[in-house]
Amino acid sequence: MLRVLTEQERAEALARLPGWTYEPTRDAITKSFRFTDFVEAWGFMSRVAILAEKADHHPEWFNVYNRVDVLLTTHDCTGLSARDVALAQAMEAVAG
Amino acid sequence: MLRVLTEQERAEALARLPGWTYEPTRDAITKSFRFTDFVEAWGFMSRVAILAEKADHHPEWFNVYNRVDVLLTTHDCTGLSARDVALAQAMEAVAG
Repeated sequence: MLRVLTEQERAEALARLPGWTYEPTRDAITKSFRFTDFVEAWGFMSRVAILAEKADHHPEWFNVYNRVDVLLTTHDCTGLSARDVALAQAMEAVAG
Repeated sequence: MLRVLTEQERAEALARLPGWTYEPTRDAITKSFRFTDFVEAWGFMSRVAILAEKADHHPEWFNVYNRVDVLLTTHDCTGLSARDVALAQAMEAVAG
């Protein structure tokens, strides 16, 4: 059942994901999160890491100090899938 | 006492840091670590995160699944300092 989202599915998903941007070259979605400091950024990443491992779906992410840049795409279907939308929603919930 | 390393100091430090590469455009050192899986990569990052926060010196790092790409430079002196060498040595000790 793992498949790339249609353009309409993607648009509907992005409409419910504030601050997320579509990255067409990777068929991915990205967001740059900012926190108060490293401890806050790391707390976010740690909670997301456990959720990602549980779901067996891992982000591409870059961190420096209070900044966490995330890119989500699904390697198994080479594009954006429902798994990415679910992980983005989980990140929004964690970031509060 | 925070200052950019001389070319000789840098060369001596790199000689004791296997797998680390000098990045001249940033006056930084970089390494790409590979682990068995995400849990192992995350374990490495978690241990380093605590050491980095204790030292108040944070890496720039990118993770996807079992890969952790690290770039170390010191923003306070805009270049490579002894702090980066110390953090790289700590990462080597953690990575085993």
